[in-house]
Amino acid sequence: MRIVAAKQLLKANDQLASENRQRLAARQIFCINLVGSPGCGKTTLLEGLFRQLDGRLSPGVIEGDIAGQIDAERMDGLGVPVVQINTEGMCHLDANMIAAAWDGFSAAPLDVLIIENVGNLVCTAGYDLGEHLRVVVLSVAEGDDKLIKYPAIFQRSDALVVTKRDLLPHTNFDISRVRGDMERLAPQAEVFEVDALRGDGLAELADWLVSRRQAALQAP
Amino acid sequence: MRIVAAKQLLKANDQLASENRQRLAARQIFCINLVGSPGCGKTTLLEGLFRQLDGRLSPGVIEGDIAGQIDAERMDGLGVPVVQINTEGMCHLDANMIAAAWDGFSAAPLDVLIIENVGNLVCTAGYDLGEHLRVVVLSVAEGDDKLIKYPAIFQRSDALVVTKRDLLPHTNFDISRVRGDMERLAPQAEVFEVDALRGDGLAELADWLVSRRQAALQAP
Repeated sequence: MRIVAAKQLLKANDQLASENRQRLAARQIFCINLVGSPGCGKTTLLEGLFRQLDGRLSPGVIEGDIAGQIDAERMDGLGVPVVQINTEGMCHLDANMIAAAWDGFSAAPLDVLIIENVGNLVCTAGYDLGEHLRVVVLSVAEGDDKLIKYPAIFQRSDALVVTKRDLLPHTNFDISRVRGDMERLAPQAEVFEVDALRGDGLAELADWLVSRRQAALQAP
Repeated sequence: MRIVAAKQLLKANDQLASENRQRLAARQIFCINLVGSPGCGKTTLLEGLFRQLDGRLSPGVIEGDIAGQIDAERMDGLGVPVVQINTEGMCHLDANMIAAAWDGFSAAPLDVLIIENVGNLVCTAGYDLGEHLRVVVLSVAEGDDKLIKYPAIFQRSDALVVTKRDLLPHTNFDISRVRGDMERLAPQAEVFEVDALRGDGLAELADWLVSRRQAALQAP
């Protein structure tokens, strides 16, 4: 009974995700679902990325958090249109929440919508939000064994961004191990290494997003 | 309908947790539910803590992971009795899984059983496993805003262990902000600051556990 119910809910979610995808296509908005552990540096990555993009794309952001609006305020401070979703205990965003947030962007001419998911390396893996790309973030401080322990989310991502690489000298993080595990789990995925606070490595990530956007929106 | 079902499942979980508690009491085993984000340093904390306890208490460990047995192998390497639970996608441990793992300790004379939960700052908050204490771990590298964003798990914990304090000089983590938020969310909770790799701060934590064990098992 429980399994059937879960499957039906996921099916309903997939239907809503597909409607989100149509809405995005109609407005030529490229959408990214950004996932990762609490504190892996998702918001700081966005701040650095938007500085790096420097007007090449107009971004909008949906912030998913259990509580609070800290991240939304950071986006607001950059002048980026933002909608904060408070899930009030729910451990992931779903397609229905994204549809509800959509109205918040009706006035904004967006090129890219980034959904910063709830910090969670497990539950976010199962929910399609209607995005074009899923990008998973892993901080050097989390250790190099996370792909073994939480394989699903890495397997289902189009890129891995390794953050806080400035901490490499202070940890036992082995980046070649992570690259090897990612190659095995998701051979098609790109891997980026960044220090988002200082901006290192963000140029490659920004270029990749611009080119993936072009490819996605030109596709038939 | 969904809410009712979830409530019934949680009620069933509470019943099983209470049975776990009785089993633990019958064998005078003190039990800790250790929670925190992926990569916050739960396993390294246990390694340091067991070195610090240095035979004062005989520990056993249940390792909860989505996949793999990396953490169980680390405990095994220390000669600590360990049972690995692979949840295969499930984002938290529940009382039923603990009951199933219990048989693995039938031969071991334990003083303390530590349950290292799945790395997850959200879903683990809702499930009583039958433990005496819940201890939440937060690494300096995760940032000082986590108590605002994920309040429930901090609110329901008996202690907060701030790990990786050796990284303080390399981050913008404000420990006084975290102490203030914890005081507000869980005024009764203890706060410890440790560098588990080097052993700093573990003496206080070990002493606290020993005294809390004594108090819990002497209680009527």
